[in-house]
Amino acid sequence: MDREKAIGIFDSGVGGLTVLKEIIEVLPEEDTIYLGDTARLPYGTKSPATVLKYALQNARFLLSKDIKLLIVACNTASSTCLPQLQATLSIPIIGVIEPGARAAIARSRNGCIGVIGTETTINSGAYQQALYSLNPNTHCVTQICPLFVPLVEEGWETDEITLLVARRYLTPLREVGIDTLILGCTHYPRLKSAIGEAIAEGVALIDSARETALEIRRIMEKAGGLKSGKVDPQRYYYVTDQPDKFIKIGNRFLPIDPSQVCQIDL
Amino acid sequence: MDREKAIGIFDSGVGGLTVLKEIIEVLPEEDTIYLGDTARLPYGTKSPATVLKYALQNARFLLSKDIKLLIVACNTASSTCLPQLQATLSIPIIGVIEPGARAAIARSRNGCIGVIGTETTINSGAYQQALYSLNPNTHCVTQICPLFVPLVEEGWETDEITLLVARRYLTPLREVGIDTLILGCTHYPRLKSAIGEAIAEGVALIDSARETALEIRRIMEKAGGLKSGKVDPQRYYYVTDQPDKFIKIGNRFLPIDPSQVCQIDL
Repeated sequence: MDREKAIGIFDSGVGGLTVLKEIIEVLPEEDTIYLGDTARLPYGTKSPATVLKYALQNARFLLSKDIKLLIVACNTASSTCLPQLQATLSIPIIGVIEPGARAAIARSRNGCIGVIGTETTINSGAYQQALYSLNPNTHCVTQICPLFVPLVEEGWETDEITLLVARRYLTPLREVGIDTLILGCTHYPRLKSAIGEAIAEGVALIDSARETALEIRRIMEKAGGLKSGKVDPQRYYYVTDQPDKFIKIGNRFLPIDPSQVCQIDL
Repeated sequence: MDREKAIGIFDSGVGGLTVLKEIIEVLPEEDTIYLGDTARLPYGTKSPATVLKYALQNARFLLSKDIKLLIVACNTASSTCLPQLQATLSIPIIGVIEPGARAAIARSRNGCIGVIGTETTINSGAYQQALYSLNPNTHCVTQICPLFVPLVEEGWETDEITLLVARRYLTPLREVGIDTLILGCTHYPRLKSAIGEAIAEGVALIDSARETALEIRRIMEKAGGLKSGKVDPQRYYYVTDQPDKFIKIGNRFLPIDPSQVCQIDL
């Protein structure tokens, strides 16, 4: 691993910025290149084959920027095509599913774990498989939450309507008695307050972003891949649709310098 | 116009099936070819430049199928790129904006007309321009309704949550005193009951689909383009993502024969 190269990250849009934010906190000196496929988002309602096609294009674009490691920050892409990406490309590729599952297993006391995500993420069974392979006694309950992303993008994170939607989606998980809930979509941490209110008190909410960042630091340390210099980190952003909306919504996640955002065609 | 050719229709997904349904009622003998760009939907949150790029690809694909007339069933694409499509392609191209605006002007008594639609449709100003050019005294009030499409796709058309969302979006239009409301997105007619309950009683809801179908019949009659034979009509569907979800949700709009649905790559 060439320690002076950047870390590449892609997502369907702005959601992966939650992962980038944690990367910046855990590995502040590293250069980062973020790609948001804003012209074709969302991925969570598309078929696995289409998500794979887009993920390969995203990964190849970032590889052309000469990165040392690739983070698939999108839960949908992580859950449907990580093995194919790893088989195709020659650098380490990290998804968000396994770090999230590991954190949930470590946290749960009663072994009853909920997973919420997009249609394609939940239907892939990736979280369920990751949890069972870590602990075959896990009781895993899942729920697709199609309205959560639109509610975040509408800016209604703490709205009473969002709380009603969260109650509708989460009551079945509450009734089963989960003690840990994986927020299996990068947008969902922004709904922590509504989700926390809708689910039973004391249920641990697992946000994969932090766990993924910690895992990446471990991998890079082991591979001797941490950046050596103390030069200020470079942060570049690429998007497939016009940048203005990405910058506007993205700034709710972390500060983005508009001069570092560039539109590309994939 | 070669009367034996088919009518082409495109939309970002299933919504344009509301227009196809009216075409089938008004012109039952015509062959139709429908394209839903399901791999890249929605269009309503994307920039006009990206929507134009996709619309041109859709139109060129349908032209390669040798159609006699093209209907842009998507409000977002109609509102952002109809002139460019008309300038580029050599067959008649009809959008849904002008028929909807004309019907609203004919219906309104007090000249105060509301328009609801996606972000890109409303921000284009196309409905506003169409209304003013038909009647410069029109008072036009607009509202972006980002959650309406996700609520329809979730199947919550008559849910109490949908009614709350409709009240939130429509109260400002109600307070202004509109007497006519243009449903400026092909999904919205499916929310007629919630929209009707949220807006003042007696407000006329204008669904462009019927008006568009009637306009197309007029144009084809004038051009001598109506199909001459009494042969059973052919109905073909093309989608850019896997067909199963299109067929499942599309069947809520009109009956779709799965053997007539084909996936393509644009």
